[in-house]
Amino acid sequence: MADQVSEQTTNRLSLYLRFLNDLDTNGVRTVSSKILAAQFGLNAALIRKDLSHFGDLGVRGVGYVVKDLRQRLRRILGLDRRLNVAIIGAGNLGFALADYPGFRQEGFRIVALFDTVRAKVGLSSRLGVRIHDIRDLKRVSRRVGITIAVIAVPTGAAQVVVNTVVDAGIKAVLNFAPGALRVPRDVKLKSVDLTVSLESLSFHLARGEGARA
Amino acid sequence: MADQVSEQTTNRLSLYLRFLNDLDTNGVRTVSSKILAAQFGLNAALIRKDLSHFGDLGVRGVGYVVKDLRQRLRRILGLDRRLNVAIIGAGNLGFALADYPGFRQEGFRIVALFDTVRAKVGLSSRLGVRIHDIRDLKRVSRRVGITIAVIAVPTGAAQVVVNTVVDAGIKAVLNFAPGALRVPRDVKLKSVDLTVSLESLSFHLARGEGARA
Repeated sequence: MADQVSEQTTNRLSLYLRFLNDLDTNGVRTVSSKILAAQFGLNAALIRKDLSHFGDLGVRGVGYVVKDLRQRLRRILGLDRRLNVAIIGAGNLGFALADYPGFRQEGFRIVALFDTVRAKVGLSSRLGVRIHDIRDLKRVSRRVGITIAVIAVPTGAAQVVVNTVVDAGIKAVLNFAPGALRVPRDVKLKSVDLTVSLESLSFHLARGEGARA
Repeated sequence: MADQVSEQTTNRLSLYLRFLNDLDTNGVRTVSSKILAAQFGLNAALIRKDLSHFGDLGVRGVGYVVKDLRQRLRRILGLDRRLNVAIIGAGNLGFALADYPGFRQEGFRIVALFDTVRAKVGLSSRLGVRIHDIRDLKRVSRRVGITIAVIAVPTGAAQVVVNTVVDAGIKAVLNFAPGALRVPRDVKLKSVDLTVSLESLSFHLARGEGARA
């Protein structure tokens, strides 16, 4: 079952979870697939299908119990476990990611920053994430257990850094450096291309101007 | 035709474009939908369908001419026009985005940073993007023409900042602050949820461990 789950499905589960967090905070007890559909501009059947991958989560005539569905989604996404994240690269992007509120809200623990620049080692981000020497990655990972490494270094340095991460035994990598990276088969790599979002806006602007012309 | 194009399709067009840039740089002249499919782990029929939305771009027996397809994709995504981007919020994230190499590679021009903190006004990012007072947004936009505003401020300040952006007549907003924002109907808003990518990794880790257990 979980094998048939696409990346697009898990991405939608994340967005459902964020909305369920809001509903729960606001004391809402149940939610229908119709309301979820309206919130995300999707059709209700797709949402029911997404959620049915993981067993029958809905209650006929009621929809979904917010607290239950939230807990189930957290478990499905693996967020009920300790997830220690290290950020590699203590530049502007690294600091921004180290203190990004969204990560902490979902339970990710940002345990360390790493950099090659000696002068930065020992300093901390505004929220107190300490910078370590990249040469200590394996040692720190053995001590605290790093689940995910986030690559926030310039493109030219990214492959060398990823090799160091792999060598330290870390099995999941989130990459923000533009360009392709190679990892062994047993390491899961996900790259974030921030330009995609800008281009989506550009597409809509171009289309909108065409319609008005 | 363009009306039926989903966000997921335009996102894929962006990724195809990035790969075509690489091929073009490396002197590759033609590419088949099969090769594109292998590169992105998609099926070739989906890729042909994505590209057929915009007219017949392929040549039977040859596939796609790299330079032509690249040019067509740039036009489809609206990248053949001047796209001036302003970053609102000169913190770590704002500076990282102002100097993010991916934006410049595709032709986006980062024309200004804006902040409320007086002491920052007049300073520049490493690549020379100057920080302006947020109160001058409308004036600067009138002078240089800002096409897209990127929101890189804390969640608590985001709605006020978006209102200022809308008031300055800017019609496209890329938001990095977690949480929902309201904009008028004629303004296109896209929010980037960085936590989605971490959760996708977490999902795969949880699944992988299950399989091994």
